[in-house]
Amino acid sequence: MQSGQIERVDGFLRALQDRICAAIEVADGAARFREDAWQRDEGGGGRTRVLADGQVFEQAGIGFSRVRGPRLPPAASARRPEIAGRSWTALGVSLVFHPRNPHVPTTHMNVRYFEAQADGELPVWWFGGGFDLTPFYPRDEDVRHWHRVARDLCAPFGEEIYPRCKRWCDEYFYLKHRNETRGVGGLFFDDLDEGGFERCFAFMQAVGNGFLDAYLPIVALRRDEAYGDTEREFQLYRRGRYVEFNLVYDRGTLFGLQSGGRTESILMSLPPRVRFEYAYKPAAGTAEARLADYLVPRDWV
Amino acid sequence: MQSGQIERVDGFLRALQDRICAAIEVADGAARFREDAWQRDEGGGGRTRVLADGQVFEQAGIGFSRVRGPRLPPAASARRPEIAGRSWTALGVSLVFHPRNPHVPTTHMNVRYFEAQADGELPVWWFGGGFDLTPFYPRDEDVRHWHRVARDLCAPFGEEIYPRCKRWCDEYFYLKHRNETRGVGGLFFDDLDEGGFERCFAFMQAVGNGFLDAYLPIVALRRDEAYGDTEREFQLYRRGRYVEFNLVYDRGTLFGLQSGGRTESILMSLPPRVRFEYAYKPAAGTAEARLADYLVPRDWV
Repeated sequence: MQSGQIERVDGFLRALQDRICAAIEVADGAARFREDAWQRDEGGGGRTRVLADGQVFEQAGIGFSRVRGPRLPPAASARRPEIAGRSWTALGVSLVFHPRNPHVPTTHMNVRYFEAQADGELPVWWFGGGFDLTPFYPRDEDVRHWHRVARDLCAPFGEEIYPRCKRWCDEYFYLKHRNETRGVGGLFFDDLDEGGFERCFAFMQAVGNGFLDAYLPIVALRRDEAYGDTEREFQLYRRGRYVEFNLVYDRGTLFGLQSGGRTESILMSLPPRVRFEYAYKPAAGTAEARLADYLVPRDWV
Repeated sequence: MQSGQIERVDGFLRALQDRICAAIEVADGAARFREDAWQRDEGGGGRTRVLADGQVFEQAGIGFSRVRGPRLPPAASARRPEIAGRSWTALGVSLVFHPRNPHVPTTHMNVRYFEAQADGELPVWWFGGGFDLTPFYPRDEDVRHWHRVARDLCAPFGEEIYPRCKRWCDEYFYLKHRNETRGVGGLFFDDLDEGGFERCFAFMQAVGNGFLDAYLPIVALRRDEAYGDTEREFQLYRRGRYVEFNLVYDRGTLFGLQSGGRTESILMSLPPRVRFEYAYKPAAGTAEARLADYLVPRDWV
């Protein structure tokens, strides 16, 4: 059977999506989110919101989804054979923001809850999520701020949490074929059930709530910095790496596409405009060449 | 041991790359191919040629590679367990051309040869390849021409060859998450060893040689057609599907990236500029809406 936990997580996630949309509309100052509510044949649905062609955000997408199925696919229960074949429910909020100004970093946040149910049995559940930052022209003070917010929100849950989720993020958002991370990292966690539901739910809320504290100050600081064609072209080129990561490696994207998820909601993470260039290398000593130093894991706090 | 067959295939493939480059430079009339010769630590290497910012071709990439390894990876011998662990050599020419004018279709061609060797044993070998066309504003007469050339080059090898390779192409270049083919198809074949080396090598040569006959007349006919922002934006949007296919589904791309291939040579297939747009749908009755009718397999000859 389903637990009452689902409704609590559902309430938090919908409210989180609303709050983030409201804050991003204020930050943008021009465009609004448009919502598509959708349903899934197999059960459940979601509300996908996209702000397009804004003043600050070239595209900002944030989706809430709550989907269920009658039987766990084998891949989902590989690590937990005791729940093979159970019915399941998955809830999450996922966002990717692509700012217009190359001095404002791209960002991604996701929080999710998963529950596997069986008649007469307690549900098996876990949380996952995190947030990460992908700058084009990184500033040390911005990256330090980002990681300080991440560290501070983890602190109430134990000293080991931040370093563990920080390392996991560096390992997850890694392009093996480029030998570089997707950005400067942040937090990543999955399969979280340690310490009971209340503790885990509180941590997931802390991550979701902390996101705007981590991101908005950087937007405010960099949104009006001057830039020209060089910076724009570099941004478009680097967005290509975002596409490579999401389509080649990202488990959420690939699982979503393979399992018949709503394609447009899954691929709204892709940048609105992108450039690929064969064998591009920034000239030594340029601002563009500096980025490579930031795509190797580093302690920031 | 290696067979003398490798040197014959090698000679054909290098000459094919040279001929195609010469013809494309003439067709373009402005830009030239730049060559990067590269070597692979594990054995072998290649020559990657890219023509960028041409008059007709926004980007044209064509690579020759000849690589070898001491032991077949398990995936490569899954269907042929008798050759597990053998040393191997793989040769191929692969190209993707991205024209500037949206009335000129994007195209891809690949021909390849694979050989697995063991001391005191005859080598096990097979051929693969094909070519396919991805128009933005398809014309029936162009698509018929394309498939007629494909059919005619297959004819000397038996009546069943064209329908089989045509169907295989439609099945291979298929985006499941979009329920559409990548383009209007062409030919695809793999694991070809039927009828002996001479016959198979001749077929692979016919495919490689036939490519320019299939493609260049379409380029000549459409290169000067007028277009504006609408067509350009639609082209950039549709190129997004090319990126989706190559990074999510294409076995050559994924195997190359996973096996430590030269990243820049593998990803030169990606279009120079791309656009993604959430939930885009062309208005009914427009030239852009027509394309969908061509992304369902059809008999063209």
